Amino acid sequence: MKLWQDKLRKIDPYVPGEQSDAPGLVKLNANENPYPPSPRVQELLRGACAADFRRYPDANGSNLRRALAKHFGLGEDQVFMGNGSDDVLALCFQAFFASGQPILFPDITYSFYPVWCDLLRVPFERVPLQDDFRIDPRSFDRPNGGVIFPNPNAPTSLGEGPGFIEDILQHNQDCIVIVDEAYVDFGGVSSVPLLEKYGNLVVVQTMSKSRSLAGLRIGYALCAPELCAVLDAVKNSYNSYTMDMLALACGTASVEDDAYFRETCAKVVATRERAAKQLRGLGFTVLPSQTNFLFATHEKHAARAIFEALREKDIFIRYFNAPRIDNYLRITVGTEEEMDRLAAALQEVL
Amino acid sequence: MKLWQDKLRKIDPYVPGEQSDAPGLVKLNANENPYPPSPRVQELLRGACAADFRRYPDANGSNLRRALAKHFGLGEDQVFMGNGSDDVLALCFQAFFASGQPILFPDITYSFYPVWCDLLRVPFERVPLQDDFRIDPRSFDRPNGGVIFPNPNAPTSLGEGPGFIEDILQHNQDCIVIVDEAYVDFGGVSSVPLLEKYGNLVVVQTMSKSRSLAGLRIGYALCAPELCAVLDAVKNSYNSYTMDMLALACGTASVEDDAYFRETCAKVVATRERAAKQLRGLGFTVLPSQTNFLFATHEKHAARAIFEALREKDIFIRYFNAPRIDNYLRITVGTEEEMDRLAAALQEVL
Repeated sequence: MKLWQDKLRKIDPYVPGEQSDAPGLVKLNANENPYPPSPRVQELLRGACAADFRRYPDANGSNLRRALAKHFGLGEDQVFMGNGSDDVLALCFQAFFASGQPILFPDITYSFYPVWCDLLRVPFERVPLQDDFRIDPRSFDRPNGGVIFPNPNAPTSLGEGPGFIEDILQHNQDCIVIVDEAYVDFGGVSSVPLLEKYGNLVVVQTMSKSRSLAGLRIGYALCAPELCAVLDAVKNSYNSYTMDMLALACGTASVEDDAYFRETCAKVVATRERAAKQLRGLGFTVLPSQTNFLFATHEKHAARAIFEALREKDIFIRYFNAPRIDNYLRITVGTEEEMDRLAAALQEVL
Repeated sequence: MKLWQDKLRKIDPYVPGEQSDAPGLVKLNANENPYPPSPRVQELLRGACAADFRRYPDANGSNLRRALAKHFGLGEDQVFMGNGSDDVLALCFQAFFASGQPILFPDITYSFYPVWCDLLRVPFERVPLQDDFRIDPRSFDRPNGGVIFPNPNAPTSLGEGPGFIEDILQHNQDCIVIVDEAYVDFGGVSSVPLLEKYGNLVVVQTMSKSRSLAGLRIGYALCAPELCAVLDAVKNSYNSYTMDMLALACGTASVEDDAYFRETCAKVVATRERAAKQLRGLGFTVLPSQTNFLFATHEKHAARAIFEALREKDIFIRYFNAPRIDNYLRITVGTEEEMDRLAAALQEVL
């Protein structure tokens, strides 16, 4: 034992999810989009000049900020951007959950929330979802240092409407409420219109799912200028240049192509509904998803066994060995062909 | 005053350095490289396929990790990578400076160190440089929670040899010692060979300067596998996918083109020596730089006045309004043509 080992941060390693690009694999385990990003992104790549890389990128990402502000009808001072929504959320935790009081989030939700709390020493309490896996808005009615939940929630795939969100905001006016809208573009209802009324609301979105840009790491928060300024201050005290030039440019190209965005989202939604019907036909109970994935359980077959049998057939889906959901499977919506291959494999497996 | 404002992090906004791309500007204020990155980076861009972006990047960045390990003759488990060396350093502060004891760094050094300490609540003490702006190795001989300094130091441009670094390591075996080698490729002596002997040494480098990839945000730390594992654990608890696909691929292409790397570094060094001579001829005292910038002062003319006069002529250099160095100028080494334009402008100004 060396003395310097005493000075290291003790932390349980968080292991990133399995990624594989073996040929022939049906990869439905990471909620990636089956379609490429807007053709404008490829166009931009064609014209990209490596010589520009010798310069630092625009620390404020002004072009992307402007494009997002315009897209959402907000001011540029209401848009904060980061290196994927994980970066944005980690910065939100540092910026907004500084009171020392416990923050609240559902017991079944995005698994990174407690990890950030541990890393950043933010106390937290998990509030239980109802038996139907829906969030109980009353569960947040207690003293807290902040509230965060995804809408739609993950991995449940269930979404709530603006009245529901407003109810939570009404009862939590003394803390920051973060709505994590990673999946909102697949049929959820965004809380962005509530920003006008609630200065303590922060809406976080990502380009990784609905915009097919997971590989480029682009996320953003939409909130009051006052909160945006705190996020910028924390970010600039951490790393002034988080987003690289190509990510900024490709993100801008994507936001400017709204027609393609709507079209591919609609395709994913249509495939989702078709796949849900197939799964129900195979005996699954499938929750009514507002996301690009399905959360399903089978009466007669254990989720873990199905997960492992599909893996044998080179079909990767997601299984969580966690309380309450250990008999459920999370299945990303792929192309129609991929979902047909899944259905055929399930037919053999069951 | 709303109650939620109490829960926000209070932090002085750190304002990123001025960036401008006005045409005709001579931009010598950000220590950027005057040459483009390896032609292999442009080649890679030509072949890049936007459709790949729908997938998450490799969280471990295995290809780049392998290329760096090979380049430095280290194990892959000794390489940690991040989103620019600022990201790597911020993660090092979180991973290695967790004892609660004050960390030590020079009073004149990279301005981000105290900013990270404030953000991450790491106590610190500044130790004074000697009158000749050199680091006094004895200044670190006191109880501390860690040591960090750049070698070569910035903005002084002065570098020290391996005996000097080993002296500091010998006297600081109970804490982590970080040597920030952002500028080492322009004639400094790297501490990488000392890694074999000192398990508490961390060497941090960047691709922003010597590899002309500032726009893509690539930095890395080289250290013992045990320390690398702590960095990975902290990083994966913060954001599993910090580095995007293109940055990973372009960084790999750069590392694999060693001949181009050496050639452009040598060009910058040659221009630096030529420019230092020009400045000395104009009455400047120029410190013996081992970096891609010059740190200079003029006996008869105030640094601030020179800085402002050059700005009027669209030549941007860097002036620090800080104790001990407020009569110095930091001038990035550009192309020979840019340095000639600087010399001509200075002749008019003085």
